[in-house]
Amino acid sequence: MKKLKIAQIAPPWISVPPKKYGGTELIISHLTEELIRRGHQVTLFASGDSVTTAKLFSVYRKALFEKGIPWNDTFHFLFYASTVFEKIKNFDIIHNHFNYWGLAFSRFTKIPMVTTYHGDFATAEKNPARFQILKKFKKNAFVSISNSQRKFTKANLNFIATVYNGIDLKKFKFNNKSQNYLVWLGQITEKKGIIEAIKAARKARIILKIAGGVDKNHLLDVGFYERKVKPLIDGKQIKYLGEVGSFKKNILLRNALALINPVKWNEPFGLVMIEAMACGTPVIAFNQGSVPELVKNDQTGFIVSQFNKKRKINIEGLVEAIKKINQIDRRECRKRVEENFTVEKMVDGYEKLYYEIVKKYQKN
Amino acid sequence: MKKLKIAQIAPPWISVPPKKYGGTELIISHLTEELIRRGHQVTLFASGDSVTTAKLFSVYRKALFEKGIPWNDTFHFLFYASTVFEKIKNFDIIHNHFNYWGLAFSRFTKIPMVTTYHGDFATAEKNPARFQILKKFKKNAFVSISNSQRKFTKANLNFIATVYNGIDLKKFKFNNKSQNYLVWLGQITEKKGIIEAIKAARKARIILKIAGGVDKNHLLDVGFYERKVKPLIDGKQIKYLGEVGSFKKNILLRNALALINPVKWNEPFGLVMIEAMACGTPVIAFNQGSVPELVKNDQTGFIVSQFNKKRKINIEGLVEAIKKINQIDRRECRKRVEENFTVEKMVDGYEKLYYEIVKKYQKN
Repeated sequence: MKKLKIAQIAPPWISVPPKKYGGTELIISHLTEELIRRGHQVTLFASGDSVTTAKLFSVYRKALFEKGIPWNDTFHFLFYASTVFEKIKNFDIIHNHFNYWGLAFSRFTKIPMVTTYHGDFATAEKNPARFQILKKFKKNAFVSISNSQRKFTKANLNFIATVYNGIDLKKFKFNNKSQNYLVWLGQITEKKGIIEAIKAARKARIILKIAGGVDKNHLLDVGFYERKVKPLIDGKQIKYLGEVGSFKKNILLRNALALINPVKWNEPFGLVMIEAMACGTPVIAFNQGSVPELVKNDQTGFIVSQFNKKRKINIEGLVEAIKKINQIDRRECRKRVEENFTVEKMVDGYEKLYYEIVKKYQKN
Repeated sequence: MKKLKIAQIAPPWISVPPKKYGGTELIISHLTEELIRRGHQVTLFASGDSVTTAKLFSVYRKALFEKGIPWNDTFHFLFYASTVFEKIKNFDIIHNHFNYWGLAFSRFTKIPMVTTYHGDFATAEKNPARFQILKKFKKNAFVSISNSQRKFTKANLNFIATVYNGIDLKKFKFNNKSQNYLVWLGQITEKKGIIEAIKAARKARIILKIAGGVDKNHLLDVGFYERKVKPLIDGKQIKYLGEVGSFKKNILLRNALALINPVKWNEPFGLVMIEAMACGTPVIAFNQGSVPELVKNDQTGFIVSQFNKKRKINIEGLVEAIKKINQIDRRECRKRVEENFTVEKMVDGYEKLYYEIVKKYQKN
C-alpha cells in the first residue's frame, strides 16, 4: 500500500519524548518513530528540543514548560496553533494530539484529521468552553485510548475506534522471580490511592516501596503528602524512594511481587499497569476506569471493588489480593502486554485508521 | 460607488455598545451604525446582548464579562474566534477589533482584513507571545487610533492610516458659560494623574469634582484609592461623586471650567478629552501620548510638560494653566471636535480605507 504523509501535532509544552513526566508525549514519540520505521513520511510538530527521526517543525525552540510558561497561557498556544496550521500542507492525514486547539483549527484545512484525546473528559467538561468546543467538533473523528474513556464525555463524540497505548517492550525486562515487596508508583496525589496502598501493605505485613514525585506547584498535593503520607512512612515497612529515573523504575517494577495501584478515579489509561505487567509483575487495582481493560482479573492480577458492603473503601479486598498474589503466573502478565499493549500493536491500530480515513476522504 | 459587505469583529467580553465601561465597544457601535446609515451591509460579530441595526452574529448570548468569565480565559475565546472565522464568508472586507485572535485566524480567510488595535502596545508587548503574534502578522493592514500610538510598538507593523476615534456630537451639548469648578473623570488609577489634579486644584484654590469608579478586582487600585485619594477628599473643595452615568457625566463636563486630565502615561487615545471639548470645556493635560493630537495648545486648552526643571511632577504648570483658562474660547473647543473627532469623520476615514483595500485586493 502507498505510504502516507502524516502530520503529528503535539502540544508545545513538553518535548517529544518527554525529558521527565509526560505520558502523552511518550506515546506521540513511540507512534512517530514506528511510523517512520514502517516507511511513512512523518512531520512532527512539537517543541524544538524534541528528538525524532521524523521531520521536526517547531515553533518554539524549547518546551514551554521548561521556560516557565504556565500550561494555560493563552497567547503562546494561539501563536503555536496558528503557525502550525498555516504550515500544514500536502499531508494525507493530520493526527491531532493538541486537543481543543487542533479541533478549533480543523475546519481551516481540507486535510482529514483524527484526534486522540489523551485526557479525562469528566474533568475537562466541567469547563463550559471546553465542553462547547468538544460538542462543536463532535463529528470530527475521535480515537479513545480505552473504552472506559468514552463513558465520561457528554459531548456525544464520533469515536471511530479505541487504540490502546503501547510501550516499548525492549525497555521492560521480564523477570519470573520476584522479591518480597509491593511497589506503588506515580505522582503523589490523593486520588491515586497511595493511602489505601499503605494501609493494605501494613495489614498484609509486607514491605511497600513508594516511588514518585510531589508536584511542588500543587499546594493541595504538597499538603496531602506532608500531612497524610509522610507520617505513614517508617523507612522499614513503608519506604519512600522519591522520584526515580527510568532505569531505577524498571528494576523496582520487575522485582516487585505486585504493583499495587488502587487508583480511585476513572483514569482513561493507566500506563504504569502495562509497564508492570511487561516485567511480569501482576497488578492489584480497584475496579475503575480502564483497569478491567488492561488487567485480566485472576490472570494478570486482581481487580478489587473499591467499596465493601459497608460502603467503605475496600482495604480488606486489597489485603486478600496481596495474600493470593502468588497464584498469578508472571508469564501471563508479560504475554498480555505482548499481545495487546506494545508500540507495534498501537501503531497497527492507528495505521489501519489512517488508511480508512484517507480512503473515505478520497471517495467524497 | 458600490456599497460594501463588511464584517465587524468585536470581542465577546463586553456588549456593543457597552452597558457601562468599554471604549472599544462604543467605537465599534458608532462605526457599525454609521456604516449602515451609509447603505453598507454590515454584520456585527459580538455578544448576543449587543444592540445594533446591523445583522448580529453572536456566539455567546451574554457578554462574557457579565457572566464572570475572566478576560484571559483561553477556551471561551478560542471557541468564539474559531466559530466567527468559520462563518465569515461572502464579505468584501473584515474589520478586526479582536486583536491577536483576529490576527491569528487571518490567514485562514481570503477576505482582506484591516485591524484596529485599540490598546496600548507598550504594555501588550511585555508579553513575549503577544509581541510574537504582532511581529508575525506585521504585514497585515493596521490602523492606529493616534500617531502617538504607533511609537510604542516594536513590531514594525504595517500601519496604513491613523483614524481618530469619533463621538456622537448630539450627545454632548455645547455650553458657552461655565461654572467655577474643574472636573476629573475616569477610572481611578495612579497613572491617570488624579493626585496631581487634586494638588493643582488645591494650589489654585478651585473646586475639583471627581467622577469615576474604582475597579474592585484590582487590589492595587483599591489600595491606591483608600490610602492616597480618599484622605484628600474633603467634600468641600475636593468632591468625589463616585461613578456617574452618561447623563450626569455630560452635565458635569459641560458646566466645568476645564477638564483636568494630567494622565502620566502614553494613552493611545483619551476619549474623555474629546467629550469635554465637544461641550466647549477646555482641557488641561500633560504632554503625553495622544494629547498634542487631540488638544490644540492655547486654543482648546493647555498642554503642560509633565516635569519641571527640577525633574519633579509639574504641579505649578497645571496651576498656571488653571489660572489662565479663561483665555480659551469655548467655541474653539467645540469646533475642534466638530472638525476632527465626530463619528462621521471617523467613518469617513474607515470607509475610504475599506475601498482602498478592496480595490487593491481585487487588482491582485
